[in-house]
Amino acid sequence: MIESPYVGDFASDNHTKAHPFVLDAVAAANTGHAPAYGDDAWTSRLIDQIRSEFGDQATPFVALNGTGANMLGLSLMLGRRYDAIICPDTAHIATHETGATERILGVKLITVPTSQGKLTPEDVIARLGTPENISEVQPKVVSISEVTELGTCYTPEEIAALAETAHANGMLLHVDGARIANAAAFLGCSLRQLITEAGVDVLSFGASKNGGLVGEAVIVLRPDLAEGGPYLRRQMLQLASKMRFVSAQLSALLTGELWRDNARHANAMARRLADGIADLPGLTIRWPVESNAVFASLPAGAIEELRSRYLFHVWDATDNTVRWMTAFDTSPEDVDAFISDIRKAVKG
Amino acid sequence: MIESPYVGDFASDNHTKAHPFVLDAVAAANTGHAPAYGDDAWTSRLIDQIRSEFGDQATPFVALNGTGANMLGLSLMLGRRYDAIICPDTAHIATHETGATERILGVKLITVPTSQGKLTPEDVIARLGTPENISEVQPKVVSISEVTELGTCYTPEEIAALAETAHANGMLLHVDGARIANAAAFLGCSLRQLITEAGVDVLSFGASKNGGLVGEAVIVLRPDLAEGGPYLRRQMLQLASKMRFVSAQLSALLTGELWRDNARHANAMARRLADGIADLPGLTIRWPVESNAVFASLPAGAIEELRSRYLFHVWDATDNTVRWMTAFDTSPEDVDAFISDIRKAVKG
Amino acid sequence: MIESPYVGDFASDNHTKAHPFVLDAVAAANTGHAPAYGDDAWTSRLIDQIRSEFGDQATPFVALNGTGANMLGLSLMLGRRYDAIICPDTAHIATHETGATERILGVKLITVPTSQGKLTPEDVIARLGTPENISEVQPKVVSISEVTELGTCYTPEEIAALAETAHANGMLLHVDGARIANAAAFLGCSLRQLITEAGVDVLSFGASKNGGLVGEAVIVLRPDLAEGGPYLRRQMLQLASKMRFVSAQLSALLTGELWRDNARHANAMARRLADGIADLPGLTIRWPVESNAVFASLPAGAIEELRSRYLFHVWDATDNTVRWMTAFDTSPEDVDAFISDIRKAVKG
Amino acid sequence: MIESPYVGDFASDNHTKAHPFVLDAVAAANTGHAPAYGDDAWTSRLIDQIRSEFGDQATPFVALNGTGANMLGLSLMLGRRYDAIICPDTAHIATHETGATERILGVKLITVPTSQGKLTPEDVIARLGTPENISEVQPKVVSISEVTELGTCYTPEEIAALAETAHANGMLLHVDGARIANAAAFLGCSLRQLITEAGVDVLSFGASKNGGLVGEAVIVLRPDLAEGGPYLRRQMLQLASKMRFVSAQLSALLTGELWRDNARHANAMARRLADGIADLPGLTIRWPVESNAVFASLPAGAIEELRSRYLFHVWDATDNTVRWMTAFDTSPEDVDAFISDIRKAVKG
Repeated sequence: MIESPYVGDFASDNHTKAHPFVLDAVAAANTGHAPAYGDDAWTSRLIDQIRSEFGDQATPFVALNGTGANMLGLSLMLGRRYDAIICPDTAHIATHETGATERILGVKLITVPTSQGKLTPEDVIARLGTPENISEVQPKVVSISEVTELGTCYTPEEIAALAETAHANGMLLHVDGARIANAAAFLGCSLRQLITEAGVDVLSFGASKNGGLVGEAVIVLRPDLAEGGPYLRRQMLQLASKMRFVSAQLSALLTGELWRDNARHANAMARRLADGIADLPGLTIRWPVESNAVFASLPAGAIEELRSRYLFHVWDATDNTVRWMTAFDTSPEDVDAFISDIRKAVKG
Repeated sequence: MIESPYVGDFASDNHTKAHPFVLDAVAAANTGHAPAYGDDAWTSRLIDQIRSEFGDQATPFVALNGTGANMLGLSLMLGRRYDAIICPDTAHIATHETGATERILGVKLITVPTSQGKLTPEDVIARLGTPENISEVQPKVVSISEVTELGTCYTPEEIAALAETAHANGMLLHVDGARIANAAAFLGCSLRQLITEAGVDVLSFGASKNGGLVGEAVIVLRPDLAEGGPYLRRQMLQLASKMRFVSAQLSALLTGELWRDNARHANAMARRLADGIADLPGLTIRWPVESNAVFASLPAGAIEELRSRYLFHVWDATDNTVRWMTAFDTSPEDVDAFISDIRKAVKG
Repeated sequence: MIESPYVGDFASDNHTKAHPFVLDAVAAANTGHAPAYGDDAWTSRLIDQIRSEFGDQATPFVALNGTGANMLGLSLMLGRRYDAIICPDTAHIATHETGATERILGVKLITVPTSQGKLTPEDVIARLGTPENISEVQPKVVSISEVTELGTCYTPEEIAALAETAHANGMLLHVDGARIANAAAFLGCSLRQLITEAGVDVLSFGASKNGGLVGEAVIVLRPDLAEGGPYLRRQMLQLASKMRFVSAQLSALLTGELWRDNARHANAMARRLADGIADLPGLTIRWPVESNAVFASLPAGAIEELRSRYLFHVWDATDNTVRWMTAFDTSPEDVDAFISDIRKAVKG
Repeated sequence: MIESPYVGDFASDNHTKAHPFVLDAVAAANTGHAPAYGDDAWTSRLIDQIRSEFGDQATPFVALNGTGANMLGLSLMLGRRYDAIICPDTAHIATHETGATERILGVKLITVPTSQGKLTPEDVIARLGTPENISEVQPKVVSISEVTELGTCYTPEEIAALAETAHANGMLLHVDGARIANAAAFLGCSLRQLITEAGVDVLSFGASKNGGLVGEAVIVLRPDLAEGGPYLRRQMLQLASKMRFVSAQLSALLTGELWRDNARHANAMARRLADGIADLPGLTIRWPVESNAVFASLPAGAIEELRSRYLFHVWDATDNTVRWMTAFDTSPEDVDAFISDIRKAVKG
């Protein structure tokens, strides 16, 4: 699975190869000439698929990576130089994009502590500030991650409530969907239910962590927000020259709901892992396992021992919390071996 | 070659598919797990190849597209908020990146009219401004394109003279090498001669137009400039999650100088095209054909007729100049048929 | 007039003291408490005066300096991240604000060579670019200086033609009016005729060069553009805490058209200077003298000799052009002495 | 003191007029010509005074307002595009400058909850993050307010400890000194002890709240940080054209320690106010009164009644906290009348 000395890799769902169907689609697209920058047949097909999935008002913009998709999507939503974004303090855009939000977009993030990575309408309302106070930025976007950074999922109802709160206060709802497939698979709902019908305005649609090769997409659900998209995608460094090769990947994931199969399997492996260690004294599963991540606290010595043979990240060194990720290519055997080693390590 | 109604495509070298070896390399990399963000074996191999090509002081940063590579490279060179860039007024960063230079980098471009797209040391010296004038931006970077936007090439000596002028005045030299392969092929020199030995500080190393699939690289030739690269690549939206798939492409192009074969062929096809029409009364080849581009002026009626059957861009409608690009997959037969049709169209 | 060794100062209209009436107004405002940030009686009075001068739709925003007024005004006019500004290549915002336009606003300037510092509708039309080209910035603002940087003036008809061209193409017209008083005085028209009725959208209203102490104003002529002004003034570092002291100065200049008296006198002194040297062989007045500036070319030796005793700027060392400015406090005797010395210096 | 219907004004120390000596200094400077942009005798004198006060290594940059001084000072300290600022979550730069920090500087603020508005070395150390994590911004500046936003003061020792912590970790210490005079007056120390000797790198030196008219200064204590100052002051919209009029104000405040007299009086009036209400049941003084501010919680009805006759701000409506500010021109009679009315209102 991974080069020695490691016997297993639960570090990230972006350590995987691409799903074979994705690679096949890229290879199939590698024929003859095609117009650049999106005027090709593969991108046309992708647009049809996205509209079939999300509704006719959806406009996809193929992008190049997750941070790029987030920044491009947000740039479409922010108009005034004093607009601000409300998000959980664990948000990827707040913590792990090297300040791109502030540097590239020039916008302030109003970050909110949460219990399980999930923002509530009450959180939003408490951060509305004072519209007439000219010394304060004015919230314009609520941004959430689905799946959250802690592996939990908003229900469609929870997203709808956030959308309603945002809209009622003149704001828009953005979803960082780096793992949106895992959420829909966990919730057993369609992307349309989870996103379009819930009232989301712009979605970063993740592919890399779901079996893609390179590339993501921004999906704009409100046509008026899409107008500047082509210009901004170029300016925001997200325009693929030979776009067909990214579009073909996304198409492959959307065909026959491959995205759901991949996500469902990854989720099942995380569930299997959690179930296999839930009873262990001395180990605590930190947050509900609702996707392909298991966050656990365990003794420092056990972490050290496991990390000598397995790849994974320490999430928070101050309380010995680690993050274990599964993916579409994680096998039950991989998980069972890991469970066995965790049990040994924790029991000492 | 391209879907009807077109019988030929001379629009751009990014209309091509990827070279088969590039696709093979991606497929070969699609195995097992690999660390994300560049800590993988394919990227390690690429770094070795780049150093073998450009010298041991070279540090490559895999990036996602050409504009991204330019912006990332420039961001490494600009330190003071009042630094400016001197470049030809035809520069891609000045004309075709939707204002990313100003918006993303916040920097002023001091643009210089040129005769054939090429900047001279005298041009640079004339734009140095007044260092002690606190109302003026201060030039810090000279940025040129090699191949230029007009299809011409700087010789290694010309680049060295620009580097010397830049360095003598406390500036750095940046090269937008979207078609650097075509230049080296035309000039018959190594990349090390053209870039490293000429004194270039940072290069955008183009792959897409040379047979790549998706992805480019920034190559930093001065180690002190590379320090912030990892942070800035993330912030500048250029960090590939599954980097192996981009690194593998670049590796394939560097292996056995595939880049040079591809470029040499493309150049030869442009040469063949130019030679086949050079004698045509009523048609003027605008600039020396030194790469894979032919710029020609011809009667508006002939342009119209040709565009009904061939894909290509009008470069300047005010003087009936068109741009014809060839690529690694352009065949002599493609060219000869086009020559024949051009001759007919021009003769009316 | 100025400390030794200089016997005269024609360097700039910001070398002057404040007009006594302006200082008196500041002193009169220095009484008791007043709300900060503009909620004071002096600012209310200023708003009334501005509306009386420019029309009821005018909204003034007191600002702190000329660059600040320009940047604040432009920030109100630019909405999309890919908007651009068309301006003369001599524009202050392009040449003498240390790149604030690019750094603070993030916007590209499309600069146009002009013969006498004045932009024409044809210039604008030639720079409209290609609206559907997503690789190009899209012009949104036309920015001119009135008086121009070369001391010339647009007539109200010329400004109206530019406004019409801008509006017909979905753009707005901005006027950097650092010397707007001198223009209105030269043209013998009201500010309303020159600005409001000509169709200007936003004006930087200069005070410092007209006898002010510190502070300028942005005057927004279209109410919809004024909405974000209070927030942006704070963000753009232009909000005066004790605003009454700036408002009182502007009020003083507007009272009884003091601004026009000051400008008329300064203009007359420049006229007197130009008339006194127009016949000199070996000296050329470069541009029509239509305000308080005289630009002249004269032998390098004469420049050197004059600069040993007079303060003034060399405008362009390559063609021995100097700039001589007059102000509200320049006396006929100052001018006559200078004429005499210029004549001696040029005759050698 | 203030126009009806108000009988008293405890809203802000920027509601006051300028101190008479400040106005006198402006009037005295209003004579003849002087070079613009700081090359004048008044600014030279100010530089001498600043160096006499803060030490020979100090370089002052006259600026136009408090937000401008903060942004200019910070811009001198931030070099890398991924630098970040650690500050209390109550910091003015984080809460009351309409997002200028993010928009103008492009920098992320890492905000820290505090008990009394004061940051500790432990707070800084806990936010250092992971230097090798390329997805995280890297702290470069610690920014504190002295006086804090809650009216408390850091001792020189506390500032020195923060400076030491910052420097030991490759960072710099910035002080927003909008009320630095009040701090030095409270602490009974010199500005040199509180700032220079404590190791502060850059100070925003406040004048408006201490009896100034318009204008502040940035004082750079490390010569290497001052180099770009003249360019950045222009770009950051803080360059006063007729600088003598701002310099003269600051000079007046520095002459004979007028700043300290003004601050000491304001502080004494706040102390008098606090002492006069400290025993009131139902009213709580929220934070130690260490400057010219009293923060108190009292019944909503009492607040409402008092606000019908007095000008002051509600600081936090959720816990009925108000802010009462005194200034150099607050009289004991003003305070005593207010005490009497507060007592009546609270007792109902």
